[in-house]
Amino acid sequence: MRHLLLNTLIKQNVYRLGCNRYSTLQEPKEPIVKSKAIPGPKSLELKDKLDAVQSTGTIQLFADYEKSAGNYICDVDGNVLLDVYTQISSVPLGYNHPRLINVFKDEKNLKTLINRPALGVFPGKEWPEKLHSILMNIAPKGLNKITTMMCGSCSNENAYKSIFIWYQNKVRGTAAFTEQEKCSCMINQAPGSPQLSILSFKGAFHGRTLGALSTTHSKYIHKMDIPSFDWPVASFPQYKYPLDENVAENKKEDQKCLSEVEDLIEQYTKKSNPVAGVAIEPIQSEGGDNEASPEFFRGLQSICKKRGVALLIDEVQTGGGGTGKFWCHEHFNFEQPPDVVTFSKKLQLGGYFHNDDFVPNEPYRIFNTWMGDPGKVLLLEEIIKVIQEEKLLANVNETGKVLKDGLLNLEKEFPNILNSTRGRGTFLAINCTNTNVRDRIITALRHTGVQTGGCGDISIRFRPALVFKKYHANIVLDRFRTVLKSL
Amino acid sequence: MRHLLLNTLIKQNVYRLGCNRYSTLQEPKEPIVKSKAIPGPKSLELKDKLDAVQSTGTIQLFADYEKSAGNYICDVDGNVLLDVYTQISSVPLGYNHPRLINVFKDEKNLKTLINRPALGVFPGKEWPEKLHSILMNIAPKGLNKITTMMCGSCSNENAYKSIFIWYQNKVRGTAAFTEQEKCSCMINQAPGSPQLSILSFKGAFHGRTLGALSTTHSKYIHKMDIPSFDWPVASFPQYKYPLDENVAENKKEDQKCLSEVEDLIEQYTKKSNPVAGVAIEPIQSEGGDNEASPEFFRGLQSICKKRGVALLIDEVQTGGGGTGKFWCHEHFNFEQPPDVVTFSKKLQLGGYFHNDDFVPNEPYRIFNTWMGDPGKVLLLEEIIKVIQEEKLLANVNETGKVLKDGLLNLEKEFPNILNSTRGRGTFLAINCTNTNVRDRIITALRHTGVQTGGCGDISIRFRPALVFKKYHANIVLDRFRTVLKSL
Repeated sequence: MRHLLLNTLIKQNVYRLGCNRYSTLQEPKEPIVKSKAIPGPKSLELKDKLDAVQSTGTIQLFADYEKSAGNYICDVDGNVLLDVYTQISSVPLGYNHPRLINVFKDEKNLKTLINRPALGVFPGKEWPEKLHSILMNIAPKGLNKITTMMCGSCSNENAYKSIFIWYQNKVRGTAAFTEQEKCSCMINQAPGSPQLSILSFKGAFHGRTLGALSTTHSKYIHKMDIPSFDWPVASFPQYKYPLDENVAENKKEDQKCLSEVEDLIEQYTKKSNPVAGVAIEPIQSEGGDNEASPEFFRGLQSICKKRGVALLIDEVQTGGGGTGKFWCHEHFNFEQPPDVVTFSKKLQLGGYFHNDDFVPNEPYRIFNTWMGDPGKVLLLEEIIKVIQEEKLLANVNETGKVLKDGLLNLEKEFPNILNSTRGRGTFLAINCTNTNVRDRIITALRHTGVQTGGCGDISIRFRPALVFKKYHANIVLDRFRTVLKSL
Repeated sequence: MRHLLLNTLIKQNVYRLGCNRYSTLQEPKEPIVKSKAIPGPKSLELKDKLDAVQSTGTIQLFADYEKSAGNYICDVDGNVLLDVYTQISSVPLGYNHPRLINVFKDEKNLKTLINRPALGVFPGKEWPEKLHSILMNIAPKGLNKITTMMCGSCSNENAYKSIFIWYQNKVRGTAAFTEQEKCSCMINQAPGSPQLSILSFKGAFHGRTLGALSTTHSKYIHKMDIPSFDWPVASFPQYKYPLDENVAENKKEDQKCLSEVEDLIEQYTKKSNPVAGVAIEPIQSEGGDNEASPEFFRGLQSICKKRGVALLIDEVQTGGGGTGKFWCHEHFNFEQPPDVVTFSKKLQLGGYFHNDDFVPNEPYRIFNTWMGDPGKVLLLEEIIKVIQEEKLLANVNETGKVLKDGLLNLEKEFPNILNSTRGRGTFLAINCTNTNVRDRIITALRHTGVQTGGCGDISIRFRPALVFKKYHANIVLDRFRTVLKSL
């Protein structure tokens, strides 16, 4: 394996950058588990130290990122785990990719990094070119504008704002803002701050700031005690698996959910809280890796068009290649592009693509101090190049097939424990009988050297980096089988 | 001047790092204006290019950050402006500070930068130590916990959430969440998503995501068409200047505003939308550099304590030394620490300091993928060191005195144009007769090589970097006088 890697590296001209560069890429042959439990004693010690200043209830381990390489994350107890969770799906090229290490060895890039501008006011001279060559290069087909942000929540929040502004523009027509609008919005009242809503789906996750949180419905602990906008929540399709044995039933499920969307739009119009936009993930991730059919998504778009409602596709977790296409919604064959597509995570910064209709006419309506981060765009630039040069989308599809077939086989082998394998590319999930079993499997997998993540109540999600190869998938499947046998 | 700078550099052992390092620090002797107008032709060309993919209504110029140095920002048309606005107050050490350039020449730091973790789950081994040595090192007195975020809006949004959780904990006592709470919050309804409010002030700016925006009231264009929570808005003191000639009247103004706060707390309790927290800037920045007296702030804290309401001080713009103390609220001599202090901008990342009461008992309540950015913390580490080593707070106070005295003199010299000089340290502002005059002055100043910013309707704000020296202040004052004479 190392030999193969070396060949690849030489082909990519990476090796000649020097041995110390190359060494950073050296993955182990397989996971190494040294401590009796994970977190091990050194992680627990650091957790105590951290606990003095910060909540640590969510910490799984303390990593040694200097030693981590490719698909393997090292922790402070000497464990080297095959990482198929990748920082909640946010690492595109694995750890210490030499191409990313080199980005800031370039003095020009280093200066871009440390001289962080207020991009909306004093952008650097490279900014227009970078947007064109990097971000517009990956723009979803049909969307010609980009608004940059910093994280997923801010991307959705600002996209919602763009949608509200677009909606009110349609209502207002060519009329100017009235004095009453100008005054009332300053004290949080209508008509300036109108009642308008974003429709979202049960099980959805769109972020945790107060606007985004009003469209998030994956777990109660995210929402408890936090005030919310009264915005409508529709059912997301819940399919029976395997899909090809439940076609008619799942089709009915699509129809039921689409009717609910129409009903809610009607209902919220009647109660003077009209739906300006619909926000939806192409695959509900945090909520349990729930997928919906291309037909469902096209039906949703058609309802949105009919009702004058914007359709926002939240690709914060799905965007960047994990589903085998750069944007998951490319799988849906929309007749027209969605109105807004938001992103973050693997793309390093956040933002949203949209068309001209969603650019406010007046300045300072969608604005903040930083409006993104040029340093992150430089990383994204290199990531996109590597994805293209190394044909990583093809790799995702090939590896994804191995992983998915393997999961389907495990499902057959252990029908009392596993079911409902699903997903696209390497963006996969499988259900366990119940939460307890799911949690035990994730812990046991970690102790055999495989880091996965849970989602929903009973699902395990797989979110490997784009450089995750077939032989990595086979390691995961082998260890998974061992764990299942031991249950 | 160059000679002095060189001496300083040699003393700091920076010079020996090599001439190419030193060259980055070389400020010009004075501003250089080459183009007839700013933005000049090259900026306009880039603006056209950017306009194809992004809204450009707020762009003032395109900068050349490679050539910018210290307090001087260069643009693409060869203009070199003395920058007293510093990317909306977010640049602590000026441009291309050699110490910041060196941060990522360290391979270990570089790896921290490119291996960005989900800090809440898999933090790096250095994270506890970095929080202790960097962030807790600058913690406001009396606050022992830190929650890290990415930007100002996210910091305030999550701080509000911490406040709501704290408030509901008091209401709930030791009782567990009820099933009704768990179910209702999932569909955005009470009692799980209760009616609770954050009281803010007219003229306030706390960010632009939907929760933060409900506490922002600086300009209608920020709020128009965006749904808002029905949260109370109290008057912020509006003082008569000079302060020492209007003591009694301003004291009455304090009392009036404090009464209004009490009334609103009462009113919102009665309408079952109780006030859980009060958010306030130590100096309202975006809203017009409005200050309030230490007495007002202490009075506000006393009301909060009495009513069981949390007091949040938003130091996003004021934090980091510009007011002559690291935190502006240190000027207020609070008897007890505020409950929450939020920050971002000059501190590179965002977050909030708080005490144990504002740490949720359950995991995942305050959480997101990144929870900040260790790469930014490394920059902050170096910034704090430079602030301490170069005694930059003392510099801010000395320079601030020169700048403020100079502005007061200009005010006397041009009483029909200027009034109400105010502020602390170099965090200063002055009012103009009206918006038109203010805007003309800012444009004219730019054309003499001084970049300032507007705030409120009629104010010019000064937000130089902490490395802004007395001789820089004198350049600003000279050019300001020239502009005023030409009006």
